[in-house]
Amino acid sequence: MAVRVDVEFAAKDAVRAVKRGDLIIVVDVLRCSSSIVSALANGVEAVIPTETLKEAYRLREQHSDYLLVGERKGRKPRGFDLGNSPLEFLRELVDGKTVIMTTTGGTRALVRCRGAEHVLVGAFLNAGAVAKKAVEIAQTNRVNVSFVLAGEKGLFSLEDFLCAGAIASEFPAGTFDLSDKALAAVLGFERVKDALGEYVGESRHAKHLIELGFERDIEFSCMLNHFGLVPVYRDGKVTLMR
Amino acid sequence: MAVRVDVEFAAKDAVRAVKRGDLIIVVDVLRCSSSIVSALANGVEAVIPTETLKEAYRLREQHSDYLLVGERKGRKPRGFDLGNSPLEFLRELVDGKTVIMTTTGGTRALVRCRGAEHVLVGAFLNAGAVAKKAVEIAQTNRVNVSFVLAGEKGLFSLEDFLCAGAIASEFPAGTFDLSDKALAAVLGFERVKDALGEYVGESRHAKHLIELGFERDIEFSCMLNHFGLVPVYRDGKVTLMR
Repeated sequence: MAVRVDVEFAAKDAVRAVKRGDLIIVVDVLRCSSSIVSALANGVEAVIPTETLKEAYRLREQHSDYLLVGERKGRKPRGFDLGNSPLEFLRELVDGKTVIMTTTGGTRALVRCRGAEHVLVGAFLNAGAVAKKAVEIAQTNRVNVSFVLAGEKGLFSLEDFLCAGAIASEFPAGTFDLSDKALAAVLGFERVKDALGEYVGESRHAKHLIELGFERDIEFSCMLNHFGLVPVYRDGKVTLMR
Repeated sequence: MAVRVDVEFAAKDAVRAVKRGDLIIVVDVLRCSSSIVSALANGVEAVIPTETLKEAYRLREQHSDYLLVGERKGRKPRGFDLGNSPLEFLRELVDGKTVIMTTTGGTRALVRCRGAEHVLVGAFLNAGAVAKKAVEIAQTNRVNVSFVLAGEKGLFSLEDFLCAGAIASEFPAGTFDLSDKALAAVLGFERVKDALGEYVGESRHAKHLIELGFERDIEFSCMLNHFGLVPVYRDGKVTLMR
């Protein structure tokens, strides 16, 4: 049996992928997924995603050694240690730490996937590594694969769509059966792969981030396969898959 | 002010585009849009789309000179004169006729757009002509543009997505502001434009049609800009825009 590959275009539809029992790849290129990858690459032990600011503040009260990171409307909330920029996760600040993260897109999508057995975090930064691991898990456990695109405000987001395409383009053609959405994503990625930053920069969310002064985050988040690591979300935490 | 261009991925979301007051381009490449274009090219005076078989049969009872055409599950329903194949609309059969058409995707999408002032029917067959007319109408009337993809069973359909991209790729870059969905569609189209039939053939719906023996319909429906005509839906009828 071929492994079916589908895409949910909005975080709110994560529940469908969970119900199907699929391996889920959560994608929020700008910037949650990219920040998680960067955080783990720089020694963060675990990222605890929360949906609300309230939960994030409460967790921090309980664990004063945890770092509080994330954004609302793109900016670092009051009392937070770091924002949601992948470039902020410097090793000297984060090595060995546990991080509480709340963002408007990605961490919500993750929390909504909590009923799923296999949840990976995908970005351009680790596309190849995630694809490889997803193939392994899907084949070993005989499960299908769903991408959940976090988007912003529940809207379709170009950069997440292209990233799902980057990952799905690595799936072996014979044994992986792409849905129309997944095929569309692969075609989009193939069109832009040689100038990723340029096209991602045309997306609504990228334009907003550029206005806020985060242009370098976009360039960094578009570094395809810069890292070989795979973040996995399990028991409420994102950690490095060993 | 730039003209905003958005895409609704499913017929049921046509109502959003209607509410926005947009010029709507309904796309159902396989096969309703392509059949409408072919019908008008071969002399059909008007196409009356209906949502249900019941309505179609009733209309035919009232007008015995109208042709009854369309499909359910890809096949010609009982008592119909023609199916939903663009190749069936031969001039000797249809010239000067009015056609009642009911299909599972496209005609439903059209009927749901009845509240909109400007509704065009787009296919690969007439992509360039539709794009030109849409630009003209949008600029003259200062309205935005929405694509409504009919899909099949309310699902995202690759061929309609690519066709929206084909049309949107003709919009003037400076004055037309593409949403993330519209940009994604353009990128997908640009990737496949030199081998349209091959990629459209990979879609779920195309595979189903090939099983039913309609492979030639797919080839025909992928003939980019084969016709220069623009069907417009107004007062319950699709006619040639003069």
